[in-house]
Amino acid sequence: MADLKSMEVSVDTTDKELLADCDAFQFTRESREWVSKMLDYNVPGGKLNRGLSVIDSLVLLKSEDELSRDEIEQAFALGWCIEWLQAYFLVMDDIMDNSHTRRGKPSWFKQPNVGLVAANDALLLRNHVPRILRKYFHGQPYYFDLRELFDEVEYQTACGQMLDLITSPAGKVDLSKYVMETYLRIVKFKTAFYSFYLPVACALYMSGESDNSKFESAKQILLQMGTYFQIQDDFLDCYGHPDVIGKVGTDIQDAKCSWLIVRAIERADASQKTRLENNYGKKDNACIEEVKKVYNDLGLAAAFSEYQQTSYGRILSAIDQEKSTRLQGVLSLFLEKIYKRQK
Amino acid sequence: MADLKSMEVSVDTTDKELLADCDAFQFTRESREWVSKMLDYNVPGGKLNRGLSVIDSLVLLKSEDELSRDEIEQAFALGWCIEWLQAYFLVMDDIMDNSHTRRGKPSWFKQPNVGLVAANDALLLRNHVPRILRKYFHGQPYYFDLRELFDEVEYQTACGQMLDLITSPAGKVDLSKYVMETYLRIVKFKTAFYSFYLPVACALYMSGESDNSKFESAKQILLQMGTYFQIQDDFLDCYGHPDVIGKVGTDIQDAKCSWLIVRAIERADASQKTRLENNYGKKDNACIEEVKKVYNDLGLAAAFSEYQQTSYGRILSAIDQEKSTRLQGVLSLFLEKIYKRQK
Repeated sequence: MADLKSMEVSVDTTDKELLADCDAFQFTRESREWVSKMLDYNVPGGKLNRGLSVIDSLVLLKSEDELSRDEIEQAFALGWCIEWLQAYFLVMDDIMDNSHTRRGKPSWFKQPNVGLVAANDALLLRNHVPRILRKYFHGQPYYFDLRELFDEVEYQTACGQMLDLITSPAGKVDLSKYVMETYLRIVKFKTAFYSFYLPVACALYMSGESDNSKFESAKQILLQMGTYFQIQDDFLDCYGHPDVIGKVGTDIQDAKCSWLIVRAIERADASQKTRLENNYGKKDNACIEEVKKVYNDLGLAAAFSEYQQTSYGRILSAIDQEKSTRLQGVLSLFLEKIYKRQK
Repeated sequence: MADLKSMEVSVDTTDKELLADCDAFQFTRESREWVSKMLDYNVPGGKLNRGLSVIDSLVLLKSEDELSRDEIEQAFALGWCIEWLQAYFLVMDDIMDNSHTRRGKPSWFKQPNVGLVAANDALLLRNHVPRILRKYFHGQPYYFDLRELFDEVEYQTACGQMLDLITSPAGKVDLSKYVMETYLRIVKFKTAFYSFYLPVACALYMSGESDNSKFESAKQILLQMGTYFQIQDDFLDCYGHPDVIGKVGTDIQDAKCSWLIVRAIERADASQKTRLENNYGKKDNACIEEVKKVYNDLGLAAAFSEYQQTSYGRILSAIDQEKSTRLQGVLSLFLEKIYKRQK
């Protein structure tokens, strides 16, 4: 499997490419320094799951000894494209949600001297993706498919973000909007396409796959996994141990449209609903505890366990029906990575 | 020449297409309404110069009776792509500059209930451009050239915006950064590529042009015109009549890196420089008047006239050297549209 170290080494190449662009664009010394600082701050530092998935998937689709040195380099570049795309989404999301921290340090736009210039930095990150794709894949038969894949996924993610922003507008909590159908739609568009489908689709193109039905069946399963992953995330935000998940959850006080609140509203009686309405989305510790009490009264931890089992079984049998054993291998690897994760 | 009316009629088509996308993405009624309102607010209402330039240029490159109905429809779609791209830039710029008004009404992000959600709306506008291009041009031999043209120009514009933001950071005025070289670079990247080169390059592709040197020579001339246009804009902001230009200029109090301040610093003696430093970028009317007094003492109106003459002559002789008479026609039309404009 591709390791974090070799992925981290390869980022230097892509960084240098953007800085070479800066030279071509006759940037001033000051703006070159700005770009360099912005990249260092925003691109590395994540778990690189999405980027590494491209390489892991490709190795399973084509087997490691069939891969040339160039192909490995291309797979790394593609992995970094997803990480840059993610960096762009995260910088933007933090601005829109007014989030103070990201990956354990202040959000980029909260840094002194940055502020809303961060929005343009996000666009620079985004604009570099087609430049990397062009450099590494121009001339490949699947180059334009790759371009359109990134277009489609970016658009889906922006649509998901819009649904999320409209469902939970800043400063206004309206629990009547938090229904399962909306929740699942947000998760699918905002997270699942780019985090789960995109890396595998990239690897499929690189492996020479051109049968559309392969992409479609992989997509259906990966979107299910993406949903399962996000629901775990929502669960751990409240029930995970801060030392294990590496952060203190804030979904309740931030009034997030989380799986827990959606399930709670579904199950709550009139008085429990009122307690949720009175306490959800408030910074006050007593309010947070009150919401957690309702969650416990409604047995949400058990409901999550049940969901987890059912969902795991459903995904497993969908993978079983996949005809290509290599693609099966990729999907199983993804599932095992996330099943019953604690962080 | 293409008229505003027919261009405005055709926007309904592109609007409907985005809304059809919304249906395909299973949007909620509420988000469909959001998108519709956002489009109405941000896409129309401009002068549509850039969009109309595509059609005007194509008619000159290919002559009107050679154009099929489909080609005219495509040219309108392409014109709207530039207008959407521009809407995306403007929504983003207003957020970053904290601008209160745009086209005579409140900026989109200043609307009640919008706020920073506007940043995501800008991304939706942007993401629709490749979708329109795909719909109207997929299968055309120049489809991918068109895609890469839009990529390149978007990146150039984002780079220009970065240079501008770094040169004039919010709340900090440092006139030592306002030098002609930086000024010209900002104008070229932030404005000239997308406003001047892009529409003509679009029309060149549609006319079947594939000779790279044609694009290059058009680009050199159009970038000069873009610079000339922006310098006029900067001049009119201070010296134009508000009734004629349709707004009261605010470049001085906003501490903009404008041609006037750059020229003033070049010409000022020590005491004039101090007066500029003490008064530029302040809201106070007395400060604004003081800056204008220095401008007058330095004879900037005459300097502008001189620049205008020289620049016009230089562009004219560059057009004269262009070998294709049709391309000459396009470039001359652009030049005549902007020469000695009062608004």
